Amino acid sequence: MPQFQGAWPALLTPFTARDEVNIPVLRAVIDYLLGKGIGGFYVCGSTGEGVYMSVAERQRVAETVVEQVNGRVPVIVHVGALALPDAVALASHAQAIGADAVASIIPPFYNDVASIVDYFAALSAAAPDLPLLSYIFGGPTDAVALMRQLMAIPTVAGSKYTGPNMHEFRQIVELGAEYRGDHPWTVFSGMDEECLFASMFGASGNIGSTLNYIPGVYREIHACREQGDLARATELQLQANQVTRVLFSFGFMGALKAVMAILGFDCGQPRLPNRPFPAERRAALHAQLEAVGFAALAAM
Amino acid sequence: MPQFQGAWPALLTPFTARDEVNIPVLRAVIDYLLGKGIGGFYVCGSTGEGVYMSVAERQRVAETVVEQVNGRVPVIVHVGALALPDAVALASHAQAIGADAVASIIPPFYNDVASIVDYFAALSAAAPDLPLLSYIFGGPTDAVALMRQLMAIPTVAGSKYTGPNMHEFRQIVELGAEYRGDHPWTVFSGMDEECLFASMFGASGNIGSTLNYIPGVYREIHACREQGDLARATELQLQANQVTRVLFSFGFMGALKAVMAILGFDCGQPRLPNRPFPAERRAALHAQLEAVGFAALAAM
Amino acid sequence: MPQFQGAWPALLTPFTARDEVNIPVLRAVIDYLLGKGIGGFYVCGSTGEGVYMSVAERQRVAETVVEQVNGRVPVIVHVGALALPDAVALASHAQAIGADAVASIIPPFYNDVASIVDYFAALSAAAPDLPLLSYIFGGPTDAVALMRQLMAIPTVAGSKYTGPNMHEFRQIVELGAEYRGDHPWTVFSGMDEECLFASMFGASGNIGSTLNYIPGVYREIHACREQGDLARATELQLQANQVTRVLFSFGFMGALKAVMAILGFDCGQPRLPNRPFPAERRAALHAQLEAVGFAALAAM
Amino acid sequence: MPQFQGAWPALLTPFTARDEVNIPVLRAVIDYLLGKGIGGFYVCGSTGEGVYMSVAERQRVAETVVEQVNGRVPVIVHVGALALPDAVALASHAQAIGADAVASIIPPFYNDVASIVDYFAALSAAAPDLPLLSYIFGGPTDAVALMRQLMAIPTVAGSKYTGPNMHEFRQIVELGAEYRGDHPWTVFSGMDEECLFASMFGASGNIGSTLNYIPGVYREIHACREQGDLARATELQLQANQVTRVLFSFGFMGALKAVMAILGFDCGQPRLPNRPFPAERRAALHAQLEAVGFAALAAM
Repeated sequence: MPQFQGAWPALLTPFTARDEVNIPVLRAVIDYLLGKGIGGFYVCGSTGEGVYMSVAERQRVAETVVEQVNGRVPVIVHVGALALPDAVALASHAQAIGADAVASIIPPFYNDVASIVDYFAALSAAAPDLPLLSYIFGGPTDAVALMRQLMAIPTVAGSKYTGPNMHEFRQIVELGAEYRGDHPWTVFSGMDEECLFASMFGASGNIGSTLNYIPGVYREIHACREQGDLARATELQLQANQVTRVLFSFGFMGALKAVMAILGFDCGQPRLPNRPFPAERRAALHAQLEAVGFAALAAM
Repeated sequence: MPQFQGAWPALLTPFTARDEVNIPVLRAVIDYLLGKGIGGFYVCGSTGEGVYMSVAERQRVAETVVEQVNGRVPVIVHVGALALPDAVALASHAQAIGADAVASIIPPFYNDVASIVDYFAALSAAAPDLPLLSYIFGGPTDAVALMRQLMAIPTVAGSKYTGPNMHEFRQIVELGAEYRGDHPWTVFSGMDEECLFASMFGASGNIGSTLNYIPGVYREIHACREQGDLARATELQLQANQVTRVLFSFGFMGALKAVMAILGFDCGQPRLPNRPFPAERRAALHAQLEAVGFAALAAM
Repeated sequence: MPQFQGAWPALLTPFTARDEVNIPVLRAVIDYLLGKGIGGFYVCGSTGEGVYMSVAERQRVAETVVEQVNGRVPVIVHVGALALPDAVALASHAQAIGADAVASIIPPFYNDVASIVDYFAALSAAAPDLPLLSYIFGGPTDAVALMRQLMAIPTVAGSKYTGPNMHEFRQIVELGAEYRGDHPWTVFSGMDEECLFASMFGASGNIGSTLNYIPGVYREIHACREQGDLARATELQLQANQVTRVLFSFGFMGALKAVMAILGFDCGQPRLPNRPFPAERRAALHAQLEAVGFAALAAM
Repeated sequence: MPQFQGAWPALLTPFTARDEVNIPVLRAVIDYLLGKGIGGFYVCGSTGEGVYMSVAERQRVAETVVEQVNGRVPVIVHVGALALPDAVALASHAQAIGADAVASIIPPFYNDVASIVDYFAALSAAAPDLPLLSYIFGGPTDAVALMRQLMAIPTVAGSKYTGPNMHEFRQIVELGAEYRGDHPWTVFSGMDEECLFASMFGASGNIGSTLNYIPGVYREIHACREQGDLARATELQLQANQVTRVLFSFGFMGALKAVMAILGFDCGQPRLPNRPFPAERRAALHAQLEAVGFAALAAM
């Protein structure tokens, strides 16, 4: 029983030319995406450059999103930070402003399971009324073993799992029934290129970068999967992946902001450590995107 | 246009109590698997413990398989070795005995693309009449970029790709049309837990360890996918994955040989660096396998 | 021509039982260490748990140290942070309060040389009147190549290099003459166990965790090396290393705070992700330290 | 009480233009190096390209070295191989031909301590009359913990430790007294750039690639260290390291063979995965070597 469902943008954060959060463009992007039938917003995550912003900036973004969305869809705020006092302040703030859930990465240097559990427990205590989602990158970590440890924290209500390993992903899906029974359990897939497969293996939905500009194709992938239309779901996933491949070949975060400009939103440049996108490559990016059917996907 | 198709066991190598290749059991396992509708045999790979055997042992296994199969299905011989003279001797021998193709891992310490290309070129020269497949583990390597380099070698006819990243897998599938046109191009998926997804993304077939004992379920997964029966394909994949999960929890290679004993084949113990399977854990392994429906899958 | 010299504590940050910075104990530790003939203080680095504190906490620690030291020795403030706005605020603050230099790690996720250079350039602009030191962990990074790129930033005046590779360390030492001529160039060794070897290869001095409790032994190692007393320098290094080995076997940061308690300073527990030190292990830690001559080293 | 001492070449293996072992040149290099006061020969290791040769080739090299040396200095044969039957055959052969000791890397894929112990136990059983040395690369492995496990094997008599971490190195040195009492215990340093520091921390001697062409400088470093001449030892180490730095900048194994040509020995090209040295770069290599005093070091 997932609490949150559908295709969610890992919402980017627009910056002005002076590297400040661009509130008007942020509001405009939110309204645009709401028109695309998205399931909710995931704010200040990796794509949102949350860990590259100050606490004050992150709080301002979260407030703006909650206000602009105004209850039309749920909002999850990523509050992860290296410094626990910062993460705690962000979690507490998220609850205060009316966000629907909080999520956190496992911060760098948290290499010990006991430390990770203590970290999430502190977030839970700071936002006791909100569901708490772990944001796990599949890979060297044994994500399933870690999640089992986190289940002792009562507000832990799921995970955003980013990685291609669907066997591991499925085991996290199955933890819900094992530990939470009929209570809500949400597992989002975070690797856009594997959205369909995660959906087949029980994902509640997916959260990703490319849902800032082609959210509709993922909404359709989920729908086709529900209707058993394997052929069309596969075809849509392959089309979306071609767009994603182009983005990666141009350097992800910078290119993502350049794509938003193509859609009419001046989101500025990314923050360090991401690299700015060179203006002289815009035309080439646009051309390559068109060659793989970007316009049709963006219109969905 | 794949040259090789279907569900292929990464054939294990049975050893006697004195740690010698057990030829009679090898023949018996081959006949058993042929009765399950497999597409071919992949010999002396990781599961076959090829790199842990001497050159003479590897040649004897290859000869036995080719002789026992006797043309009923194709046979691919893995010839990878750290020492190029060994790999070359094995490739040349595979061609001489009538194998259908050769394959090789990227050996440890081959960290340079130019060296890997030279290595595969030497194998190609040693078995000029046989298709040559790369065996690539997805992960840190950029598998697609590497394969593009290998396409300059005329006998390179595909890849066995082991890893969960289906986006990368798909790009290797697409190299066939780009570089080989209508000539044969075979891409096997090597991660059993993702067989269905690879099949949806254009896999010729799959090669894996668990096909030594539950090959039929993968044959069915491919068939369901072809027929568009998404629900049953997913259900079968999830069932197979439960068996695989039990195997991993018991330590893979040792447990694999223990499972073969359950099926009636005394395959001995694995070679170092794999660990022997403790006799006292057999009953627990069997019980856990039965709890996830092993018997029914093995009977397919 | 090093600007900073000698044996420097990577000053720890004492916390109260309520996990707040313990200013009185911080002042007491500073005075204690000044009595040991240290060369300066390195503040809010890894040992100082800087990245696990809020910006406000870090600023308060830096202010306290500068005020308490009151010019008796130089103070270097570590200002590294994932979020560039935080790092910039800290660097600007360090200059404003009269620190002698700023330093920064390469933050996590800064995997691109261009991004690292831009990051250090921003710190330089934020504290244009202070020398800027990179804090480099030897290892996968090619530290020498990276430092060459950083030399374009005019305030870059050296490095704190933590790692055992003295061949690489030496190359960083040599960059000073190559790029800065007769201008100041400081290279600190950050791996306490290799202090002597770094000193032999041209280190300006060393900065490390164990200098919070046995700073005198390193002061003596530098002195013996200058006098050419190889035998005694080696003997002292081996003695210090035995203490360090005990610390590591008890879990570094927690044990470090427990050692300070042995010396009479109640520094509390470390912050997450470091683990608290269990009270019941104190006696064992103390006993093992005494067995390797801790008291004599601490008295130096 | 080390059994083996001094400066040892990790002897390279010369190949002919047809990629066969060049026996006459091998004999000539041996005699040349014996004239330089080396302590012994380490044969078919990484520098000797042992794992890139067939078992028959490795045996032929070992036989040639033992015969040519004819008891003038001890000979250690590296017998490590991925396939245990190969390693066992090589160890047994080394004992039969009169080698003085055998050594082995931890082969790739041996990630489990129990497997590593079983592997070395099998080598010990195959050459029960010879001391057995582990060849450990410092780094991710906890080399000390591993060595403690290996001490249960009675013929284990030391280690060749390649890595910069002298704190870890020292702990392996100390294992001798702890486990073997007054029996022989040999620990070689394998990182040429850190020879002096290892010598200060109790190394029996050093084994390395650059001792094929500048062995005398290491012999002198050991001597200066014994005499307490810190200044000259440091100066010699820095000079040697400049030569090593040039070699690395030209690609190690290929450049090593090119250097031997400068000394008058036509050693051919390295085996894959090492890259051949381009003839057109020889003059530049030679020039850069001369610029850092190669001739004087080679003459020592």
